Amino acid sequence: MDRSELREAIRKFPLFSKLDGLQLDRLAEHAVVNHIPRKAMFFTEDRLAQGLNVLLSGKVKLFRMSEDGKEQTIFVFGPGEPFCLCSSFSDGKLPANLGALEDSQVLFISPDEYEAMVREDPAILLNMMRVMARRLKDAMDMIDSLSLKQIPSRLAAYFLSWHEDSKVSLDISYRELSKIIGVTPEALSRALRKMGEDGVIEVDGNEVTIVDEAGLAAY
Amino acid sequence: MDRSELREAIRKFPLFSKLDGLQLDRLAEHAVVNHIPRKAMFFTEDRLAQGLNVLLSGKVKLFRMSEDGKEQTIFVFGPGEPFCLCSSFSDGKLPANLGALEDSQVLFISPDEYEAMVREDPAILLNMMRVMARRLKDAMDMIDSLSLKQIPSRLAAYFLSWHEDSKVSLDISYRELSKIIGVTPEALSRALRKMGEDGVIEVDGNEVTIVDEAGLAAY
Repeated sequence: MDRSELREAIRKFPLFSKLDGLQLDRLAEHAVVNHIPRKAMFFTEDRLAQGLNVLLSGKVKLFRMSEDGKEQTIFVFGPGEPFCLCSSFSDGKLPANLGALEDSQVLFISPDEYEAMVREDPAILLNMMRVMARRLKDAMDMIDSLSLKQIPSRLAAYFLSWHEDSKVSLDISYRELSKIIGVTPEALSRALRKMGEDGVIEVDGNEVTIVDEAGLAAY
Repeated sequence: MDRSELREAIRKFPLFSKLDGLQLDRLAEHAVVNHIPRKAMFFTEDRLAQGLNVLLSGKVKLFRMSEDGKEQTIFVFGPGEPFCLCSSFSDGKLPANLGALEDSQVLFISPDEYEAMVREDPAILLNMMRVMARRLKDAMDMIDSLSLKQIPSRLAAYFLSWHEDSKVSLDISYRELSKIIGVTPEALSRALRKMGEDGVIEVDGNEVTIVDEAGLAAY
């Protein structure tokens, strides 16, 4: 990706919607692009965790792991989404692990660049607060789901919030989905089968069609 | 609380650490103080959810409730902590319910006042981002705990993160604690008894003493 392609890519991200032409030029000029191969972890040094990281392409997950190896995905990030926001606004430590679900490219903006950008136009902070507010809401939904709901209703909540025209295209594997829902792959598979038998969804490869939305909501 | 007492109270809150004398004067002059009696809910109109609410005194909890009445506390806020940040930075809707654990006073800053304050000195936004970063981390810990840990280890994690000099003073009831940990009061009581029998903690009324920190961490 050359500098002008990079500029085009970041210009379209909502996070940078408040930047003017000159600021975009400077950002594209000074930013560093890091690669994370699929299945690799994104390890951050202090410097990386203090600056701003924005996913350019690919897909990464933020997850926690228990001592016995059970994994819980907290967020999945796509292009345009910033990450390590928590560490850059607090103690510089990452609150969870980051791993790439696909080959990914990450735009890194150094702490100095980032501070200059914010000083020049604090409006970008409002964009970042919006991102954090949305994530905090998502985290509350997940707490709600883990604490208050049974497995089929967690899955129903997932499908209901992500479908488009009654279809959910799973661009992640069922194994990854099970980590997002917070269940074992076997329990996920049983819940999917049950929903199919109940006639509320149809599963075809990686595409799930919602046949009976009211029925799904009733879980 | 008169205006000068109000000014003194808010001057000490870390959230307002960047405000100068004139800004504090104006804030104390224009802010509205709302009361929430103990056990009452804090219902926000659109206007309230769009402005800035900061707890002046007392204690409030943010919680979700399932259809069958099971409750999960997400955060407990004390004096100086802002709330409804998610709604003021996104769609104006509260992501969860707010209820008062004690008689509480809330400082309300209208959207107009708030915008003026931010325009004048955006540094207050950085303070708010720090608050949100900390809450997002806390929410991740809770997801982790609900998803990956068993009840005694959730409780151990709670004690380990809140003790001071090996003592945890529960300024909330055991019933409220069970909602924070995400278990039934009976399960909490069993877990506390088990930890007492194992000799890792001693419970005396509302004070829990950690006798064996390594033992507690081993849960």
